[in-house]
Amino acid sequence: MQIITLTTDFGTQDWFVGTMKGVILNIAPDARIVDLTHGIAAGDIRAGAFALAAGCRFFPHGTVHVAVVDPGVGSARSAIAVQTANYFFVGPDNGVLSLALAREKIKAIRRLTNEKYFLRPVSRTFHGRDIFAPIAAHLSRGVAVGKLGPARKDLVMLPWPEPQTRGNRVAGEVVFLDRFGNAITNLENSLLRSPAGGAIYAGRKHCAPVKPFYQSVPPGAAVAVPGSSGFLEIAINGGSAAERLGLRVGDRVSLRRDSGPRSSTRI
Amino acid sequence: MQIITLTTDFGTQDWFVGTMKGVILNIAPDARIVDLTHGIAAGDIRAGAFALAAGCRFFPHGTVHVAVVDPGVGSARSAIAVQTANYFFVGPDNGVLSLALAREKIKAIRRLTNEKYFLRPVSRTFHGRDIFAPIAAHLSRGVAVGKLGPARKDLVMLPWPEPQTRGNRVAGEVVFLDRFGNAITNLENSLLRSPAGGAIYAGRKHCAPVKPFYQSVPPGAAVAVPGSSGFLEIAINGGSAAERLGLRVGDRVSLRRDSGPRSSTRI
Amino acid sequence: MQIITLTTDFGTQDWFVGTMKGVILNIAPDARIVDLTHGIAAGDIRAGAFALAAGCRFFPHGTVHVAVVDPGVGSARSAIAVQTANYFFVGPDNGVLSLALAREKIKAIRRLTNEKYFLRPVSRTFHGRDIFAPIAAHLSRGVAVGKLGPARKDLVMLPWPEPQTRGNRVAGEVVFLDRFGNAITNLENSLLRSPAGGAIYAGRKHCAPVKPFYQSVPPGAAVAVPGSSGFLEIAINGGSAAERLGLRVGDRVSLRRDSGPRSSTRI
Repeated sequence: MQIITLTTDFGTQDWFVGTMKGVILNIAPDARIVDLTHGIAAGDIRAGAFALAAGCRFFPHGTVHVAVVDPGVGSARSAIAVQTANYFFVGPDNGVLSLALAREKIKAIRRLTNEKYFLRPVSRTFHGRDIFAPIAAHLSRGVAVGKLGPARKDLVMLPWPEPQTRGNRVAGEVVFLDRFGNAITNLENSLLRSPAGGAIYAGRKHCAPVKPFYQSVPPGAAVAVPGSSGFLEIAINGGSAAERLGLRVGDRVSLRRDSGPRSSTRI
Repeated sequence: MQIITLTTDFGTQDWFVGTMKGVILNIAPDARIVDLTHGIAAGDIRAGAFALAAGCRFFPHGTVHVAVVDPGVGSARSAIAVQTANYFFVGPDNGVLSLALAREKIKAIRRLTNEKYFLRPVSRTFHGRDIFAPIAAHLSRGVAVGKLGPARKDLVMLPWPEPQTRGNRVAGEVVFLDRFGNAITNLENSLLRSPAGGAIYAGRKHCAPVKPFYQSVPPGAAVAVPGSSGFLEIAINGGSAAERLGLRVGDRVSLRRDSGPRSSTRI
Repeated sequence: MQIITLTTDFGTQDWFVGTMKGVILNIAPDARIVDLTHGIAAGDIRAGAFALAAGCRFFPHGTVHVAVVDPGVGSARSAIAVQTANYFFVGPDNGVLSLALAREKIKAIRRLTNEKYFLRPVSRTFHGRDIFAPIAAHLSRGVAVGKLGPARKDLVMLPWPEPQTRGNRVAGEVVFLDRFGNAITNLENSLLRSPAGGAIYAGRKHCAPVKPFYQSVPPGAAVAVPGSSGFLEIAINGGSAAERLGLRVGDRVSLRRDSGPRSSTRI
């Protein structure tokens, strides 16, 4: 019994995701299909890439991860499957797989051209159903990635904004806004020198002290916490930081670190 | 292991869908339950019927499809199960099954009256839980459709707007707006005489050239593409046609076909 | 094959729920995971408690119910597992389990302290992934609840507003607004003396006659029906009572009962 995860911008109000599952179950009746999310904003490749990277590593070895945020569907962009030391990844070669792959040891990249493994006829508007779902199902049943098409050497990689450190200051930016309105930054939790101490500044007005959890500050106050995806996030205790502080993806933030113990007490 | 799909207007913010699954798993612990969608607008029987018709055929032979968009729950409307050459369909007899059934070879129609297969006591506000879920579970376990109640000869059928062809012009209408704001029409892809060429007109102002995929036109431009559900759809590359063109279900559209090759190159 | 249900305020637009499922499947590859709902408003413990209480009892004996509406995550609030005669319940000890537990025969309450059963390192912002998901998975595999931590005697219980009866009048309040805009009250269906008759008053202006189902009244009219969760609810036939009548959780309502037959014809 093998797991296939799905990450898309298809939403759940239409029949698109359900249809992908039907296609998978025709080929791999025993597959366990898990929705990572279908709530990526339409066409937001970067958000899809971040969600996949944040979620994929909690699945068992051998899981097939499918990500379809694919505004270029039907155009000349490639469709690919990637085998890593831990997983398989399937999706369009537009960067949506790239943040997850940046942390994985890549063993093979194949361009999906072998129509034997497609649902035919292949539409030019729904490769999630016609290419990515059936490929994932075949991979979950043990079809070798090498059978899917010719080898490729490289991939479209999304640029990742690297934090800039200057003494006790680290400059970064907001990379994702979650359902609670928490603003996840590109500043890794490990940048902290102590589990609490210091603060994150956003714009000229907002300062969120670094604390271990949301309720470390009074209701309605801003706080920066080491987030569960490995990055510092700006939150409001009991509210939405995105709304109350007007934060958006790409906004610059700045971490002021405590000069505190540079010891093994780092998080 | 048999598949049961669910199509409802219950949304996912309450416990309704989860409860149906609990009822199913009590009866059929091995059933594979797949959400086709629960995002149908409240009481929109036509949208539910279209979603079911668009999605159902991608599931394996023997799948039990349940559709519950049921504003008349508890009233005199009938509850039915229909066996076709490929599938079982379960739901209220209000038309929600009819667009799917129009493409299927019907073998038996039964009115659901045998309370032995219901969850009792039966409420008058949630037949999804009390009638349709347990019936689907029993069907998935092999209970014969004939045991569920008396035979019926006909069904409530939703009227389907047939396109009107006049030379190179085909008049139709918008039948569904999807999550991306694409306006799906009742004009079948097969009406095209070539994979690209011609245009769809919506209202007096809007003209969308027929192209093979969304990115065939510049970002922000309108395009008409052969859609994945078998019907031409009007889209905006990178945007929402529903929003930008103000399209709604029922809006008249007109396809101008290329007089091009009347040959075997039809899509 | 054991069932694990999930009730959270995580929404489905991020990777949070999918990640919990990955963690579960690492430990219990055969578990059946069912979403009760992830659409609880952020931090609304009372709504999460009501959804869990309304849905949990439709699942098979032995089901593990996980509920995570947890604004105090990372703070001093406890994490608990509760074994009842029918089920296991897992979540923060903040009341989210309490309305369900009020109807169950409790056999054991344990505080979750045995880190052997956690996903480590444990974050202070996502116990759904790091504590509740793995605990549920271990329980579904047969780990005894006694191994999870020390016994507790009591729990945080949410106050439940008891209806006040005075002759033919019963005073109550709105306790939940569902996806259709139906206003579910704390007035049990069994308060009615006949399946139809009497009315519910909301504020000074609105009167909804008690009827057996939604379409008992003309489209657009208000109606009070015996609801599927066991409580009377105020609805609009074909519309949203929450919107049209301006109802909110906590609003006072008053049931006027028919003095009718005090006989065995009670619902």
